[in-house]
Amino acid sequence: MSELANPAATLIHIIQSAAQAESGLEQMQQIVDNICDTLQMDVCSLYLRQRDDSFLLLASRGLKQLHPVMIPPGQGLVGQVLNNKQPLLITEPQQHPAFFHVSDSDEEQFHSFAGMPLIYRGVVKGVLVVQRLNTELPDAAQQALLSTLAIHLALIINSGQFSLPSVALEQKNVVHQGISGAQGLAIGKARLAQQARLADVSRKEQQDSDTEEMRWQLLKQRTMSELEQEKHTIREQMGEGLAAVIDAYQLMLLDPGFETMLTQEIRQGAELSWALRKTIEFFSEQFRALPDPYLQARAEDVCHLGEKLYQVLQGESLQHPDSDNQEPLVLVGEHISVSDIANLAAQELAAIVCFEGAALSHIAVFANALGIPAIMGVGRLALNNGDLLVVDGDNGEVVTSVGKNLLREYRRLIRERQQTDARLVAESKQPCVSLDGQAVALLANSGLQADAEPGLRYGAEGIGLFRTEVPFMVRASLPSEQEQADIYAAVLRQYQGKPVYMRTLDIGSDKPLPYLPAVQEENPALGLRGVRYTLDNPALLTIQLRAMLRAADGNDQLRLLLPMIGSSGQLDECLQLLDDALQALRQEGLTVVRPQVGIMVEVPSAIALLPKWRDKIDFISVGTNDLSQYLLAIDRNNSLVSRWYDALHPAVLLELQRIVSIAAAAELPVSVCGELAADPQAVVLLLGMGIRQLSMSAAKIPAIKYLIRHLTVAQCQQLFEQACELDDATAIRALLQAFIDQQMAVGQ
Amino acid sequence: MSELANPAATLIHIIQSAAQAESGLEQMQQIVDNICDTLQMDVCSLYLRQRDDSFLLLASRGLKQLHPVMIPPGQGLVGQVLNNKQPLLITEPQQHPAFFHVSDSDEEQFHSFAGMPLIYRGVVKGVLVVQRLNTELPDAAQQALLSTLAIHLALIINSGQFSLPSVALEQKNVVHQGISGAQGLAIGKARLAQQARLADVSRKEQQDSDTEEMRWQLLKQRTMSELEQEKHTIREQMGEGLAAVIDAYQLMLLDPGFETMLTQEIRQGAELSWALRKTIEFFSEQFRALPDPYLQARAEDVCHLGEKLYQVLQGESLQHPDSDNQEPLVLVGEHISVSDIANLAAQELAAIVCFEGAALSHIAVFANALGIPAIMGVGRLALNNGDLLVVDGDNGEVVTSVGKNLLREYRRLIRERQQTDARLVAESKQPCVSLDGQAVALLANSGLQADAEPGLRYGAEGIGLFRTEVPFMVRASLPSEQEQADIYAAVLRQYQGKPVYMRTLDIGSDKPLPYLPAVQEENPALGLRGVRYTLDNPALLTIQLRAMLRAADGNDQLRLLLPMIGSSGQLDECLQLLDDALQALRQEGLTVVRPQVGIMVEVPSAIALLPKWRDKIDFISVGTNDLSQYLLAIDRNNSLVSRWYDALHPAVLLELQRIVSIAAAAELPVSVCGELAADPQAVVLLLGMGIRQLSMSAAKIPAIKYLIRHLTVAQCQQLFEQACELDDATAIRALLQAFIDQQMAVGQ
Repeated sequence: MSELANPAATLIHIIQSAAQAESGLEQMQQIVDNICDTLQMDVCSLYLRQRDDSFLLLASRGLKQLHPVMIPPGQGLVGQVLNNKQPLLITEPQQHPAFFHVSDSDEEQFHSFAGMPLIYRGVVKGVLVVQRLNTELPDAAQQALLSTLAIHLALIINSGQFSLPSVALEQKNVVHQGISGAQGLAIGKARLAQQARLADVSRKEQQDSDTEEMRWQLLKQRTMSELEQEKHTIREQMGEGLAAVIDAYQLMLLDPGFETMLTQEIRQGAELSWALRKTIEFFSEQFRALPDPYLQARAEDVCHLGEKLYQVLQGESLQHPDSDNQEPLVLVGEHISVSDIANLAAQELAAIVCFEGAALSHIAVFANALGIPAIMGVGRLALNNGDLLVVDGDNGEVVTSVGKNLLREYRRLIRERQQTDARLVAESKQPCVSLDGQAVALLANSGLQADAEPGLRYGAEGIGLFRTEVPFMVRASLPSEQEQADIYAAVLRQYQGKPVYMRTLDIGSDKPLPYLPAVQEENPALGLRGVRYTLDNPALLTIQLRAMLRAADGNDQLRLLLPMIGSSGQLDECLQLLDDALQALRQEGLTVVRPQVGIMVEVPSAIALLPKWRDKIDFISVGTNDLSQYLLAIDRNNSLVSRWYDALHPAVLLELQRIVSIAAAAELPVSVCGELAADPQAVVLLLGMGIRQLSMSAAKIPAIKYLIRHLTVAQCQQLFEQACELDDATAIRALLQAFIDQQMAVGQ
Repeated sequence: MSELANPAATLIHIIQSAAQAESGLEQMQQIVDNICDTLQMDVCSLYLRQRDDSFLLLASRGLKQLHPVMIPPGQGLVGQVLNNKQPLLITEPQQHPAFFHVSDSDEEQFHSFAGMPLIYRGVVKGVLVVQRLNTELPDAAQQALLSTLAIHLALIINSGQFSLPSVALEQKNVVHQGISGAQGLAIGKARLAQQARLADVSRKEQQDSDTEEMRWQLLKQRTMSELEQEKHTIREQMGEGLAAVIDAYQLMLLDPGFETMLTQEIRQGAELSWALRKTIEFFSEQFRALPDPYLQARAEDVCHLGEKLYQVLQGESLQHPDSDNQEPLVLVGEHISVSDIANLAAQELAAIVCFEGAALSHIAVFANALGIPAIMGVGRLALNNGDLLVVDGDNGEVVTSVGKNLLREYRRLIRERQQTDARLVAESKQPCVSLDGQAVALLANSGLQADAEPGLRYGAEGIGLFRTEVPFMVRASLPSEQEQADIYAAVLRQYQGKPVYMRTLDIGSDKPLPYLPAVQEENPALGLRGVRYTLDNPALLTIQLRAMLRAADGNDQLRLLLPMIGSSGQLDECLQLLDDALQALRQEGLTVVRPQVGIMVEVPSAIALLPKWRDKIDFISVGTNDLSQYLLAIDRNNSLVSRWYDALHPAVLLELQRIVSIAAAAELPVSVCGELAADPQAVVLLLGMGIRQLSMSAAKIPAIKYLIRHLTVAQCQQLFEQACELDDATAIRALLQAFIDQQMAVGQ
């Protein structure tokens, strides 16, 4: 096989020539053709796995295809390859018991068979088959090449780069898996954000520059006024600081250099949209060429402005939706901007679906605050405006081509939820005490003005985690000490007499502040974040500590929470800054008192060091999201490894138990403020291991309180012991769900 | 302050206008000018901190600068800001005890002073001062803006975007901190890789297309033959598989489409280098536009070829160094390719310095195999060919502008090391037994043909960690079962009668295989790697297991090591594939036996689950590098957080002790194969906690064996107990180093 002396060239040749095909099917056909030619095979066929595990022959060289060839589920050698997830190499395939004869295929004349599974993320997507007239099987080098191609083909199939209308047409209730950004269930019509892209504009000339310049002036005015209106909406719904983003766009739009270049393009004959594209590209290129990464990033702003202008030009601005449908809207897009959301009235927005993005993005934060479900990173969906969607924020799923039966089912579910919610809320003012008399403190997580109030309504006994990032994220520069003090004081007033656990700034390269230099890190989750960031910028932390202390002057509500503490040095540095700030404020004549101080237990190294810190801190709060991520070494936002992630992973439970017993020995009160605290199954285990304080999204308090009021802690202890014997999260979940179902049935 | 109603615009304005400055100094001057104008200040000055903590006035508006202004160390209000790392805002500065009067500055006329520290990664780089004639201090909004600007200015200063010839000229022995890719100490002359960049070529026309075409043909021929020669060198020094990379370049160079476009450009009047740039850019753009990420990545190859062609055209090919200097070479560059290394004879290459890259890159792997130091990620160094460098691979440092005294010192160090090494190697055949009679097994880490032999020479009792990635990384497609079996069999033969712990493939998006689809992950260290990857592609793992089992047929040397096991499900799936492979091989008539199976303990969740796995595995091997990374939640290759990383972090020690005691209870033998096993201080602690098997780079065995032969395990136990009382890695290191120094002095 002389051509395989250079397998790289062979591989590149096969893949490259096929990439130039115009359609997906043609691409597949060229790959099988190339495989036949290069590896001297007589047959090469590509089978696509269907939902029912049957296989459709997608492309073939050497097999007669008088009609569409289907191999029924579990049948044939191809079915064997699916079952074993392994290559199958045999001679005389027709003598194999599993051989499935396709009529008129002339397959019986081939005396060797090699089938390679096309596996993507552990799932067989199809099967690649090569055959020869003689009994010679592929040699080792050819097998290696076919294995490589199989991985490549699986990727192409999965990416949906080829479309098969005949197959796709029949699909109903297609489920698209993403990541949950905000929980909840919603049905609505798709509203595509940023449909028309400036980058798609092609060269267009005009003869009448004067008219075109007039069009430009009109466009500018209209855009300015839409931006003004957006600014107003944002200010109303999200507060003053966010609106400043729009200021920057307006400023750019009024830039004389921008104007000059654009009108010049028009005078040279360009039609407005083409002049717009050239001008925007020119200025964004200028930005990208700058040496400073902060300035380079500003190129994005120019592009955003360009898209806005083009939308207005197209009359496609989201401000003018055809209002003839009653169904609420699901905002769908590749990236969704804050101004996309601001353009829709809160009551007509039912959900958000982002093709890209992660669970921790700003959009997810806003969705949570608005109380609507959001799905992130679902991949590109082929949708039109008005398509009906089901958005399941609990499971991170979007359903398209929704069938009538499923739709009815979901509507029933939503109705039921609303009824249950109403019942739970009504009961949420009752004390949170278990059937055997154990009191559990339920507190609210908060970080937006919008989510502080619901906590009080649902009977939260305080704020268990106040995230201070949002005021930093939505502003155009660092909030001053006074601005921060005002925000913190407002929250403390709202929760008068109740404790508020304020976490110091927890930002990093995954949650960057737009006005600070962007940092590139290969693994942001293991990088500069939490106190690592603020201790590198002590002035930032000092200002925040001063603002908190000043806000807490005269009350005893403030509890200080330090994020990402992983070593004694970090803790000591933070405490030193706190004491310095106290001393300075006292010198300034204020009567500030030292608040209780605790740490987030989220970096695993903190666990073993707790005994050493017993005299330095007053309490601990377990951040189960990050703690699990590090203990399991799994990024929970990475869908490639999500199958290995479960918050009830037995190792996580064992480590939580370890934390509880170390903390008990060190006499440190423990609370839990991660997602586990709002997961009913997990709550049973947390109570079982001895935890008596939980903090969660306000909306979750009623359901968790109801659960706790309908169980005994003794039962929880027993269930926890049983769970510790299991070594599989699924089994643990099954055990707990059975218990919860039983309790709730009794409780009714 | 009406202009601060829009702080974003103010900030953008100040930063943007300054970015257009032509020199660093001018940029700084514009920033201070803009601050004065926008914030209505009378003075704005920027002070740069010098090595001796004095400050140099870099730029000022409003202060008279009759001569260069220096503030001596510890003096002045600027010195106060440095000491406190906090903003200083005072009125009547000249009455402050620390006020330092600069003669002829007229500073005494200003009655308010605000100094902001410019802090980068916790270090004060300079101070920004604003002053007013009256006593009005900056208000809250202005302070916020100044804080933001201070962070930005610190970044600019640190990035060295501005150069101060007068300051830079005097610097001797400049130390550049990077990450250690391979240890060792070397002195050599810089050899810049890829000096001329095709992207820097500007438009050049010519009148004589015929001559230019002839130049192209000559260039093509010369490049082809240089590539041929490189292929030969790579084949000789690294083996056949790697050479295939060069095949791809040659293939592209002969592509008719490439030729057509290039000659067309020439005929239209382009000079050869300009035609080259346009053609290369065209084809790489074509690749980038493809929908398939695998193909997009090929754009890089086109660019590499372009650089190669341009180098040859420039006559700068590394194949023709001026051979008039005796000093060995230090290969320096932004990215260094395998062919850059291959172009230099191993004996003349003393070290490698990469501006970018991480400790785990291919280049680091090759440097380790060649036994030369490598520094990665040191940032761009302004060097010329022939500049003398000191490369300290142990500390990840590069020293430029080396002074005579320091050079003499380093030469002495290198000489001493060579003498010590010779002495240790001579003793390395002795048994590894402590003074109180405890035997410790020392094994070698291996993964290249080049590093297997030294292990035997230094008395390794086996291979404790055989990394199987390299054969996958250097080939152009997946190695076949037979190819793998041959490699594994060769290693087992070389270590006849000794155990070889083979780890199954441990790749991920941080160590991608060039022929598999590239995966983008936000946090690769928490992503698809180790068994997570291979269980998603079970055919890959099955082929490797079959190859290992076949290689081990007839001997009892193979120990199977599973990487990144973090849950029972993963372990069970791996064991199932192993048993399936065993059964299949037996059906094929082979007499394979089931090897001992163990897991790498590197994912923290494995620790708590060890008791549940006692009947499923035969041993554990602690991978301290990854384990520490996850326990501390710190990416050890990220220089932004390296100040918090220490392999002797007290929490890591406590968790290692926990592993040892859990493993003892579950009767699982423990070995350690991370970097800790080769760190003398750590080895004392590992012995103290009961570990008796260590695996390390072959080169480290003599020194570790010497250490163990000169201490008692009783001493180690005592030291470990003392270390556990400390809560700071520096203190722990000091304790251990004092002990080691004492023991070695006694041992002499």
